[in-house]
Amino acid sequence: MRHLLSAADLSREEAITILDTAATMAATQSRAIKKLPALRGLTVVNLFFEDSTRTRISFEAAAKRLSADVINFAAKGSSVSKGESLKDTAQTLQAMGADAVVIRHSASGAPHRLATSGWIDAPVVNAGDGMHQHPTQALLDAFTMRRHLMPEAGTGAGLDGKRVVIVGDVLHSRVARSNVDLLHTLGAEVTLVAPPTLLPIGASTWPCRISYDLDTTIAEQAPDAIMMLRVQRERMSSAGGGFFPSAAEYSRRYGLDAARFEALPGHALIMHPGPMNRGLEISARAADSDRSTIVEQVGNGVAVRMAVLYLVLAGNEGTPS
Amino acid sequence: MRHLLSAADLSREEAITILDTAATMAATQSRAIKKLPALRGLTVVNLFFEDSTRTRISFEAAAKRLSADVINFAAKGSSVSKGESLKDTAQTLQAMGADAVVIRHSASGAPHRLATSGWIDAPVVNAGDGMHQHPTQALLDAFTMRRHLMPEAGTGAGLDGKRVVIVGDVLHSRVARSNVDLLHTLGAEVTLVAPPTLLPIGASTWPCRISYDLDTTIAEQAPDAIMMLRVQRERMSSAGGGFFPSAAEYSRRYGLDAARFEALPGHALIMHPGPMNRGLEISARAADSDRSTIVEQVGNGVAVRMAVLYLVLAGNEGTPS
Amino acid sequence: MRHLLSAADLSREEAITILDTAATMAATQSRAIKKLPALRGLTVVNLFFEDSTRTRISFEAAAKRLSADVINFAAKGSSVSKGESLKDTAQTLQAMGADAVVIRHSASGAPHRLATSGWIDAPVVNAGDGMHQHPTQALLDAFTMRRHLMPEAGTGAGLDGKRVVIVGDVLHSRVARSNVDLLHTLGAEVTLVAPPTLLPIGASTWPCRISYDLDTTIAEQAPDAIMMLRVQRERMSSAGGGFFPSAAEYSRRYGLDAARFEALPGHALIMHPGPMNRGLEISARAADSDRSTIVEQVGNGVAVRMAVLYLVLAGNEGTPS
Repeated sequence: MRHLLSAADLSREEAITILDTAATMAATQSRAIKKLPALRGLTVVNLFFEDSTRTRISFEAAAKRLSADVINFAAKGSSVSKGESLKDTAQTLQAMGADAVVIRHSASGAPHRLATSGWIDAPVVNAGDGMHQHPTQALLDAFTMRRHLMPEAGTGAGLDGKRVVIVGDVLHSRVARSNVDLLHTLGAEVTLVAPPTLLPIGASTWPCRISYDLDTTIAEQAPDAIMMLRVQRERMSSAGGGFFPSAAEYSRRYGLDAARFEALPGHALIMHPGPMNRGLEISARAADSDRSTIVEQVGNGVAVRMAVLYLVLAGNEGTPS
Repeated sequence: MRHLLSAADLSREEAITILDTAATMAATQSRAIKKLPALRGLTVVNLFFEDSTRTRISFEAAAKRLSADVINFAAKGSSVSKGESLKDTAQTLQAMGADAVVIRHSASGAPHRLATSGWIDAPVVNAGDGMHQHPTQALLDAFTMRRHLMPEAGTGAGLDGKRVVIVGDVLHSRVARSNVDLLHTLGAEVTLVAPPTLLPIGASTWPCRISYDLDTTIAEQAPDAIMMLRVQRERMSSAGGGFFPSAAEYSRRYGLDAARFEALPGHALIMHPGPMNRGLEISARAADSDRSTIVEQVGNGVAVRMAVLYLVLAGNEGTPS
Repeated sequence: MRHLLSAADLSREEAITILDTAATMAATQSRAIKKLPALRGLTVVNLFFEDSTRTRISFEAAAKRLSADVINFAAKGSSVSKGESLKDTAQTLQAMGADAVVIRHSASGAPHRLATSGWIDAPVVNAGDGMHQHPTQALLDAFTMRRHLMPEAGTGAGLDGKRVVIVGDVLHSRVARSNVDLLHTLGAEVTLVAPPTLLPIGASTWPCRISYDLDTTIAEQAPDAIMMLRVQRERMSSAGGGFFPSAAEYSRRYGLDAARFEALPGHALIMHPGPMNRGLEISARAADSDRSTIVEQVGNGVAVRMAVLYLVLAGNEGTPS
């Protein structure tokens, strides 16, 4: 694997290789072998044009457990025009010998531009770009689903035939978009549930079903996993009845409350990319139930990011010991 | 030792174990063995909800000298309500496999909540919480006193019978509170000296004497060590004569000026947690005298923090080599 | 070498030793030996009172490739008066056992004060102070020139007889000042070209020629290298015709446009300390030509900073392996 720019770029074989490698990484972590020497002497740069402490420290932890050096580069709020800044910064990192660049940017497409510009030779990993993609989030979600829903399957398995429902503000969510792409590639059947005003215009062409009604969807799909997206409170209408729903309307129609939680199949996973708004898109009952994988998802994020960094940096030299 | 949350929690035996371990750590530093392998492969997270560069880099230096990896997590100014933020953050760190969490928080009790919530398994070290506690500061102060006042005593010694005077804004000082608790545990006799308006209501129940008059206290106590607290200028009354003293009034009544410096016993240590306001709570004469341990305290802070991290992370496996 | 405070302090022998050591460092980098053990166990503190992400990460990368630990200390915007803050901070770093301090400060002379104050024993490296000096920038520029202009000369060579033209806002440029000092020491002949209002009053006493006319200078000097300084747009007159030129006037009279680029000798290096304002002080044609060393300069910066850190920290113990 050269770069990781978009979940849509991954073939089924590549995606499964990442999940299998992540499983190996997770196993070493649980065996209390905290550090692997795989990336010793290499430098991973976290190039964050946008704050995201959780994602940054997940990549930082992943790189350090592979014995890489990490340089954090918070590049937000520059007065330089964004295009020039990205080029100058890329050339700086190239000249300094960065071995991999993990980039977070508010502009959709910035990681792709960085990877294809010729400014830099290092592999580029997308840690979230605008409303476009967040592929390592989709990978950690798929990893979590595979572990719970296909416990017998082992190496090489996808998510064939599993039904996943993703609920919420799809319009502003790179998580939803990345998940639709990756889950489809892995053979799962995805249904997006959202108010019409919080769906992007092009969603009808995505490889998934679309619904405006959560109760009907739960009843018809009997999902194996339900993923509640984070609501940005500032995007809710304050009075209600407007273009966007109010928080109360949203919660009533799209929140995973106790009744909907009961209506799910007994084995269904409760997922959320975090941080949650308890009582808005998800009830405490659902969030804290034993079917919730919300905390586990964070830990799986480190394993998946170890796998991605390993594969882009050392992947041609065999599997990790 | 499981966590370090409050100086008040420490038994005499535990406190002395920390001081003895710190003495070992300090000895390795002076022998130019800069790094010990004790915590290789472990990750210490500096979770700072409040800025404190000095304390942060002291813990960072301590962890790195024990060969741990350090991840700095500056979590200030989140829009999330503080309670939710602490829980979400804790679960994130837990899931990422943090081996120890050093927490600084503006809310008193946050480290205790983190340690007892069940959100996280890792040991928690309090790096200062609100106006409550700053136990590693008290430990480094006690370490400094023991080294100078009990040079013959060696391993196992406390500070029995030593007289310590702490002067200043006790009301807003977690340093004063932590020192009273720890010094009492170690057998020292503590006198707090402060204007009545800068003493907390409950201070009369603390295990120490209280005085409003510095000159009388110096004369009567003949202290072995005097610790001047940092004055927050913004807490002084601008005109004087108000509820709080003006800076000039404060300095005249509670500052360690040349006359009071001369009135101290010849062996008395001059201490300050830093950074100082020279000319306000302490004169340059006192601060720069050869009995001042102010700069040494900073260095002892690294040794004490090495000891604490070592004991919470590896303490059950014997003493460091 | 004890400290690196100013390019003006360097003897020819010292400067050449740094360049030769940097050449060794650069060679190890290109041989894919990413990390040298030379500074294992030592701690380098990046003490930045002023933001400069590029310079900070260049020093951080340099220190980490020599296996040092790095602690970043961003000390900007303190309410403490600057003098006290520098002293307190220095004593803190000293007590914590910092092995070297890399300092960036908006006040000219701060690195010199830190090094000569007695507050700290560690070697001090100036990473830019006010409008005064930026010696590692001058060293990386000289390193870049020597590599291209004296390819046969090898170890021990200076830049004797080479003609260098430096163009732009010399008044506000520590880069220009440092380059004049170092290039003169190395035997090069320097001409500064600037509008009269962007030259410091004392420049007439510097060891260089001064000109107000770029075209004449290019014709007369036939330079081996031309260095375009970065224009601070906010220092340009908005209307033109004022004390300072407008951006358009500046570009017309002092920019390296296509015609001037053609007028240069075929072997002349095009240099810039970055980041560039394309179309203002330099045309894209010149910046992107194969004679441009602008990107290479950044990489050479890591090699030169490795050399400087090595020489101040381990330089008395022989050459690196």
